[in-house]
Amino acid sequence: MSEPIQLIPNNSLLTASPEEGRQLAVKMARLIIKATQPDVAVREKLRPVYAESPEMLIAIGQVVATEFATIAAANNYWR
Amino acid sequence: MSEPIQLIPNNSLLTASPEEGRQLAVKMARLIIKATQPDVAVREKLRPVYAESPEMLIAIGQVVATEFATIAAANNYWR
Amino acid sequence: MSEPIQLIPNNSLLTASPEEGRQLAVKMARLIIKATQPDVAVREKLRPVYAESPEMLIAIGQVVATEFATIAAANNYWR
Amino acid sequence: MSEPIQLIPNNSLLTASPEEGRQLAVKMARLIIKATQPDVAVREKLRPVYAESPEMLIAIGQVVATEFATIAAANNYWR
Amino acid sequence: MSEPIQLIPNNSLLTASPEEGRQLAVKMARLIIKATQPDVAVREKLRPVYAESPEMLIAIGQVVATEFATIAAANNYWR
Amino acid sequence: MSEPIQLIPNNSLLTASPEEGRQLAVKMARLIIKATQPDVAVREKLRPVYAESPEMLIAIGQVVATEFATIAAANNYWR
Repeated sequence: MSEPIQLIPNNSLLTASPEEGRQLAVKMARLIIKATQPDVAVREKLRPVYAESPEMLIAIGQVVATEFATIAAANNYWR
Repeated sequence: MSEPIQLIPNNSLLTASPEEGRQLAVKMARLIIKATQPDVAVREKLRPVYAESPEMLIAIGQVVATEFATIAAANNYWR
Repeated sequence: MSEPIQLIPNNSLLTASPEEGRQLAVKMARLIIKATQPDVAVREKLRPVYAESPEMLIAIGQVVATEFATIAAANNYWR
Repeated sequence: MSEPIQLIPNNSLLTASPEEGRQLAVKMARLIIKATQPDVAVREKLRPVYAESPEMLIAIGQVVATEFATIAAANNYWR
Repeated sequence: MSEPIQLIPNNSLLTASPEEGRQLAVKMARLIIKATQPDVAVREKLRPVYAESPEMLIAIGQVVATEFATIAAANNYWR
Repeated sequence: MSEPIQLIPNNSLLTASPEEGRQLAVKMARLIIKATQPDVAVREKLRPVYAESPEMLIAIGQVVATEFATIAAANNYWR
C-alpha cells in the first residue's frame, strides 16, 4: 500500500544549528504520523481538523518539544 | 490466551543508525499495545479508529518520541 | 481495606537485560494503578474498557515509555 | 483557608531504597493535588471519580512516573 | 492590558532546599498560565473549574512534576 | 501561503538568565503553533478558546515546561 518511509531525514540527529534542529524535530514528528497513516488522502483530510483545533495544536507542540529535547542533547545544545 | 510477547526486538537498545533506532522506537511502542491488548482481532478493529483520528495520531507521536529519547541516549546519539 | 502493595518488584531498578527492564516498566506502571485502585473487582471491570480503547492503550504506552526511560538509565542502557 | 502544605516529606529526595523512592513519588504527586485543592471534602468527593476512571488512573501513573524519574536520578538509581 | 509578568521569581532556579524547589515549580507553572491568560477575572473564574476536576488536578500535577525535574537537576538534587 | 517561519529566535538556546530562557521557551512553543497554523486569522480566532479553557492553559504549561527543560540544560541551568 505504501513504500517504506524514511523516519529520520539524512539518518542523523546532528544539525548545523538550533534552527535546523528544530526543523528536524518537526519533520520527525510528522514522519511518525505519516508512517502510522500512510494514506495521503486521509492525512490531507485530517490536516484542517488539527490545524483549527487549539488542543491539537498544543499537543503537536508537545510532541515537537519532546523530539527537540533529544535532538538538542545529541548536538550538545550547539554550545 | 496469548503466548508471552517479546517487548524489545533482539533484546537490545543499540542500533546501527538513527533510522534503525527510530524503527525500534515505533516497534517498542506497538509491542506495549500488543501486550496490553493481545487479541489481534480487537487490535485490527482499533487500527482504523486511531489511524483516522488526529488526536490519536499525535498521541502516538508522543509515545514514539519518548521511546526514541531513551534509545537515542542508549546509542550516545550515534555521534 | 488492602494490605500495602509493593510498588517495585525486588526493590531494584537493575535488571539483567532490556527485555526484563521493559517488563519491569510494565509492572511498575500497573502497580501504581493497583495502589490507587486497590479493589480488584473494580480493576477487573475497568480492564476491558481500556483494552478496547485506542486512546487509553496509547496512554498506557506513554506511561510505560516514561517508566522505561528511568529503568534504562538506571541500567546504563545495558551497554 | 488552609495552612501551608509541606510539598516534600522530610524535605529530601534521597531515600534508602527504590521502593521508598516510589512511595515518595506517589506522595509528592498527591501533595500537589492537595495544595491545589486544599478542601478535604472536595478531594474526598473526587476520589471515587478518578479511582473508577481508567483514563485518570493512567494519567496518575504518568505523573508518578515523572516524579519517580527525578527521585531516581537524585538517588543515582540506588546503584 | 497587562504589565510584563516575571516568569521566574528571583530569576534563578537555585533554591536552598527541595521544598523550596517544589514551591518554585508550582509558581513557575502558575506564571505560565498567568502570562497566557493575564486577565485576573478570567483566571478567578477558571479556578473552581480546575480545582474540582480530577483530570485537571492530575494534569496540573504533571506540569509541576515536569518543572520540578528541571529545578531538581539545576540544584544537583540538593545532594 | 506563508513565508518560512524562524522557529528559534536568534538561532540559539543560550540566554543570559533563567528569565530570558523561560521567555524563549514560551516563544518556541508559540512558533510551533504558528508554523502548524500559519493563518493569523485562524490563530486569532483560537486564542480566546484556549485562553479561557483551563485544560488548554494547563496543556500549554506542559509544553512550556518541556521546552524549558531543554533550554535550561543547554544553559547548564545558569549555575
